[in-house]
Amino acid sequence: MSKIQAWVASAPKSKFTKQEIDLGPLGEDEVEVAVEHCGICHSDLSFLNNEWGNSKFPAVLGHEISGRVAALGSAVKGLKVGQKVGIGWTCGSCMHCHQCLSGNQNFCPEAVSTIIGHKGGFASRVRAHWAWTIPIPENLPLADAGPLLCGGITVFNPLSTYGKPTDHVGIVGIGGLGHMAVKFAAAMGFEITAFTSSESKFKEAKDFGAQNVISSKDSAAIKKLAGKLDLLLVTLNVPLDWQALIATLAPKGRIHFLGVVTQPIPVSIFSLLLAQRSLSSSPVGPPVAIADMLDFSALHNITPTTEHFPMSQINEAFEHLESGKARYRIVLDADF
Amino acid sequence: MSKIQAWVASAPKSKFTKQEIDLGPLGEDEVEVAVEHCGICHSDLSFLNNEWGNSKFPAVLGHEISGRVAALGSAVKGLKVGQKVGIGWTCGSCMHCHQCLSGNQNFCPEAVSTIIGHKGGFASRVRAHWAWTIPIPENLPLADAGPLLCGGITVFNPLSTYGKPTDHVGIVGIGGLGHMAVKFAAAMGFEITAFTSSESKFKEAKDFGAQNVISSKDSAAIKKLAGKLDLLLVTLNVPLDWQALIATLAPKGRIHFLGVVTQPIPVSIFSLLLAQRSLSSSPVGPPVAIADMLDFSALHNITPTTEHFPMSQINEAFEHLESGKARYRIVLDADF
Repeated sequence: MSKIQAWVASAPKSKFTKQEIDLGPLGEDEVEVAVEHCGICHSDLSFLNNEWGNSKFPAVLGHEISGRVAALGSAVKGLKVGQKVGIGWTCGSCMHCHQCLSGNQNFCPEAVSTIIGHKGGFASRVRAHWAWTIPIPENLPLADAGPLLCGGITVFNPLSTYGKPTDHVGIVGIGGLGHMAVKFAAAMGFEITAFTSSESKFKEAKDFGAQNVISSKDSAAIKKLAGKLDLLLVTLNVPLDWQALIATLAPKGRIHFLGVVTQPIPVSIFSLLLAQRSLSSSPVGPPVAIADMLDFSALHNITPTTEHFPMSQINEAFEHLESGKARYRIVLDADF
Repeated sequence: MSKIQAWVASAPKSKFTKQEIDLGPLGEDEVEVAVEHCGICHSDLSFLNNEWGNSKFPAVLGHEISGRVAALGSAVKGLKVGQKVGIGWTCGSCMHCHQCLSGNQNFCPEAVSTIIGHKGGFASRVRAHWAWTIPIPENLPLADAGPLLCGGITVFNPLSTYGKPTDHVGIVGIGGLGHMAVKFAAAMGFEITAFTSSESKFKEAKDFGAQNVISSKDSAAIKKLAGKLDLLLVTLNVPLDWQALIATLAPKGRIHFLGVVTQPIPVSIFSLLLAQRSLSSSPVGPPVAIADMLDFSALHNITPTTEHFPMSQINEAFEHLESGKARYRIVLDADF
């Protein structure tokens, strides 16, 4: 079906309006997915506000999509109509470059973002390359699977790549990303210290699986952690006391940034050198990592903690996200 | 023998004078080494000038020591009198903490530096814990082995830890550290791009094993390397165009700092995030890594390129180092 219904932002910071859009003929490697739910990621808001300067309008945002396969292009592999699937930040890559053939399809120079120059998931239907249309395990609820496809893989990938079971892991920021990070880290057996500036989240962070919760404003408590953490995930994009946080790292420890901190961070090389520490960052993950993450989530009954809005209330949902009051991830339920 | 001859710096930036020093009784875990040669590391100069604020005077500097075992404490393991050995930056650690028992003795909180509050290698004799007195393979020339013990392990450890044979490796700075890095990297089979600001070093960098040499001032050449390097070692401690250098890294690439850059480096998290890049630093290495490095050096006939001075010309040798004209590592030959 080439004509779809979509919630369209026509300009930076505009409200969304419902429009009919023609997607044209389905490509041979494309899958068309009937959207059932689509999470709102903070980066949807950043794109709506053109914070990173690379937004394109009119835009159909939404890249935490869960739904069912509705149609298959002629060359699609491994999927069938009616199958539960998800689509995240990336919806296509060339499949023949060095990165694609290495399993690092998220670093393909021709990777297509679901919401940049492509119509995203705040719509009745969305399209993606078959390799980026990820099967969702039967026992994972479709209604809450969407946020795993972007926020989930963003935190899962560094935890599963860099973590080992005996690690002491810190999670800075207990929000959309951070609360999922705590849930995954708990299932992986890590000792977890959560950092949050909001005392109202202390109990919830423990319920998600953190053994320790400290205030990210409590310099004395942070100082006490000096040399203790093997892996520290920073899910915020606000300025923090980076030197104090780097000092919490054990020898060979790593601080890993998942929020887009737009201001350059001043890094003391000496503080890294002393203990062979690393500082790094990463975007989402490749298809196999997403599939592994979904399997892990199904095995351990991990879903994001969500608030649902009908998609027709998309503008109210964005206001709720912008207010900072979402607990913890907003999902829109398609109601076209 | 508790009385030794040593070249002593009595205050910051002072000249060295020859003095007799009493080391007291030999500890049960200590080895006494008759110094035959001792390299001058740039950090000896930094300590002499108290650049890092933690120097202690009077000081006997020198921590790139090669010599022979002269005496053994009662509890020493695995060494015998007359054996060829080396001592580097660290001369002791507690041997029972988590880091020591993990093989990360260089991160022991009680690790003793050979030149801070301890008498170093610009002397007739020097002492170290047996675990930090590293056997030197018979076919590795004692005269040029010293610089491997500090400068050598500093560059070898990240190359052997982070590198894999098919990597494209960059070495920034072809000096005391960088020229050894190129030699090791060549023996490890890496494709090597050397960065130097000195055109006079272009041919030598190739002779050391680099396939490509570019000027570190040539922005266009650096830009052409965008996305190419898997591992980039920075051996300088001067400000460079860090963003341009980070941009040379391939997906999952790492920039690793070995010079002590004293000013904080402004790091764009976005430039790391885009390609899952890491930024890191490390100090020397633990005893087994030093031993492995010496074996590797012996296997591949790798020694630093050196200039020798009699130890009695230590003040002239330091002036030569400070002039920036050393090619590439200075070694003092003991002549007490």
